[in-house]
Amino acid sequence: MVDIATRVYNRKWKIDPIVRSLIDTDFYKLLMCQSVFRHKPDTKVTFSLINRSSHVPLAKLVDEGELREQLDHIRTLSLSRGENTWLRGNMFYGKRQMFQPDFMEWFEELHLPPYHLERKGDQYELTFEGKWYEVMMWEVPSLAVLMELRNRAVLNDMGQFELQVLYARAMTRVWEKIEKLRDIDPLSIADFGTRRRHSLLWQDWCVQAMREGLGTKFTGTSNCLIAMNREVEAIGTNAHELPMVYSALAESDAELAQAPYDVLSDWHSEHDGNLRIILPDTYGTKGFLENAPDWLASWTGIRVDSGDPATAARIAINWWKERGEDPLEKRVIFSDGLDVEKIIELQKQFSDQVNISFGWGTLLTNDFRGFVPNDGLAPFSMVCKAVAANGRPTVKLSDNPAKAMGPPDEIKRYKRVFGVGDQERIKVVV
Amino acid sequence: MVDIATRVYNRKWKIDPIVRSLIDTDFYKLLMCQSVFRHKPDTKVTFSLINRSSHVPLAKLVDEGELREQLDHIRTLSLSRGENTWLRGNMFYGKRQMFQPDFMEWFEELHLPPYHLERKGDQYELTFEGKWYEVMMWEVPSLAVLMELRNRAVLNDMGQFELQVLYARAMTRVWEKIEKLRDIDPLSIADFGTRRRHSLLWQDWCVQAMREGLGTKFTGTSNCLIAMNREVEAIGTNAHELPMVYSALAESDAELAQAPYDVLSDWHSEHDGNLRIILPDTYGTKGFLENAPDWLASWTGIRVDSGDPATAARIAINWWKERGEDPLEKRVIFSDGLDVEKIIELQKQFSDQVNISFGWGTLLTNDFRGFVPNDGLAPFSMVCKAVAANGRPTVKLSDNPAKAMGPPDEIKRYKRVFGVGDQERIKVVV
Repeated sequence: MVDIATRVYNRKWKIDPIVRSLIDTDFYKLLMCQSVFRHKPDTKVTFSLINRSSHVPLAKLVDEGELREQLDHIRTLSLSRGENTWLRGNMFYGKRQMFQPDFMEWFEELHLPPYHLERKGDQYELTFEGKWYEVMMWEVPSLAVLMELRNRAVLNDMGQFELQVLYARAMTRVWEKIEKLRDIDPLSIADFGTRRRHSLLWQDWCVQAMREGLGTKFTGTSNCLIAMNREVEAIGTNAHELPMVYSALAESDAELAQAPYDVLSDWHSEHDGNLRIILPDTYGTKGFLENAPDWLASWTGIRVDSGDPATAARIAINWWKERGEDPLEKRVIFSDGLDVEKIIELQKQFSDQVNISFGWGTLLTNDFRGFVPNDGLAPFSMVCKAVAANGRPTVKLSDNPAKAMGPPDEIKRYKRVFGVGDQERIKVVV
Repeated sequence: MVDIATRVYNRKWKIDPIVRSLIDTDFYKLLMCQSVFRHKPDTKVTFSLINRSSHVPLAKLVDEGELREQLDHIRTLSLSRGENTWLRGNMFYGKRQMFQPDFMEWFEELHLPPYHLERKGDQYELTFEGKWYEVMMWEVPSLAVLMELRNRAVLNDMGQFELQVLYARAMTRVWEKIEKLRDIDPLSIADFGTRRRHSLLWQDWCVQAMREGLGTKFTGTSNCLIAMNREVEAIGTNAHELPMVYSALAESDAELAQAPYDVLSDWHSEHDGNLRIILPDTYGTKGFLENAPDWLASWTGIRVDSGDPATAARIAINWWKERGEDPLEKRVIFSDGLDVEKIIELQKQFSDQVNISFGWGTLLTNDFRGFVPNDGLAPFSMVCKAVAANGRPTVKLSDNPAKAMGPPDEIKRYKRVFGVGDQERIKVVV
């Protein structure tokens, strides 16, 4: 029996919206949003979408009109009643009322602010300017929209069975990865793949497959909508945008040197337990830890998001030891460009020294490499970053110069202030 | 929107029937049935299901009650109005009214006759006794039921995503085979995989994938129900049961030697063009062609269903030449245990000597090899054959002694009558 109403309803669609919910975003964006809402409500920030993969000519592949339709659709979204209830009532990281009433009252009224879109050669320039806690909410949906519109351009040319086999291959690939992970014990792994996912439906499939295949080894997803719908944990803490904006706001070199610790001091006042995770690499992990105040050593763990992950983990473990902490009571979260082999290797290497978690991103939710001619569905490296705060440029050094951002003279200044020397360049896959 | 009525309706099912239509069977069974209905209406035949793969303990894997339910369900089936219309109105092999009014009137009233089922150790003994043109209709559905019940026993233990990935793997495998075939030109290939298919839904998927992937190189399916639903050609001519029963009915060695030609003489009176396909291997291809009457050389082609296919094709090509026929105007149909590599090899070997077609069976519609532990979903060799006619045993020699059937003394007599010497034994995969 075909449900006639469903067919007729489907026919009425003007577009097939890629993002259909304000909480189809990463959980840490909401945590950070609340933190910014509280601590930096007046800061004006510019976010900019940057395609690091210049070989992918987005403006040739993606029609500007369609891109505008998708972005305009996102601006029509507001929090639904059920989403509101979930955010207010759900337990996150063991805590009720993670989101405060004043924040929720604002969020209930939120519509995303305007965007600025311009074609520049074969690329788009897509920027968002305004109150930090508003424009920051564009990051994840704008990336997801561009990745999926590029994919749709490729999928449009494929036949029905060709499509089915494409997804069959992708399912097989994910499942074979899960089968490899299943044998690792202990294991603690979450989905971090919202922003550069193949599509929402696909991410949702991956999360469910992880749940069936890994049981309690699968700890949750960064995607709030999927966490709500599938009743799994919402996972995430904080990101580079906090130290980047705090640093850009610094009035002197001395304030700049202090800024990354101010971020964590604000965070310390709001969160405890597994939410106290240091992200140390914005201006170099080594220097950040060496100069860190003692109270930071009491935090639960550290997230490794650039550079050689084993090196960063060793630095963290030594740092804890120096500060009189037991690494076996600490946690290292790996989240940079992971795939199964790397996960297995890191787990073997460090599981007797420290607790380990993995935030598995693009190569979980978008490993369509090698499936179509010219690798037209392979994920590529695209980010949406805060590039300016109150009119000043932001800077990121990272533990990998391939991930660095900012004007050259500012990068030079930051390197001096944070004592960052030569760094090893590592190819960014996704 | 969930269609509530559909859910409630589904809940009412007592069983999930494997065979739901009398025309979910091979087209050649209907052609042969009409021929028998016309020429041998009084012959009583016993069909027997034989599992050649004794390592598959069917009676352990398949519950006898469930098997009876499935077989009983088949006995409730009768021709639907639409099926009746299709058989009467559709063009088969370029011909309207392939099925005569008297045959159709009988077929409209047909319910399959009783079956006899007994457990013998780890195997079932399943036999069908009665009028030839009735019991012969049990062959294909009874095989499909046993293969699928065995599969269901394995599938029952699998999780939802594990199942989805299983089919994803199977789809990928079929599609990769199709991609290999796509490059062959010319190519003429049909689905012959009803009897030992994984399931009807799966066969239906394979047929559609072949159509999308191969276009006009895909010439149709042997399955009447799928041919009707998908509007593709129904393909098939005749099988060993005709010469086996005709031979069993022979009153003397002289009549026996003549019997296989009598079959084709009856067929000659009914069919022309692409339906005039010789199946020469029942009692040895070589002797059959050497002793064949001249009019047989005018037939359109030959079907190679046992032994080494290249050898049989060479024998046929030489035979046509000897009889003054041009092989380039003839057709060889390969249908025995084919998979892609063999298809490509045979096409290369013979495409400049003769027209070639392929009837691709079990390794199209049931290649689930290697997907689950202990290879529990791999196809296995099971047949349902006429074992007696009017109380006399039938015999098959074949071009491969592994496919031979019948009591030893009768096999000896047939070998003598048909002049069959030593034969090469070839392992039967499916």
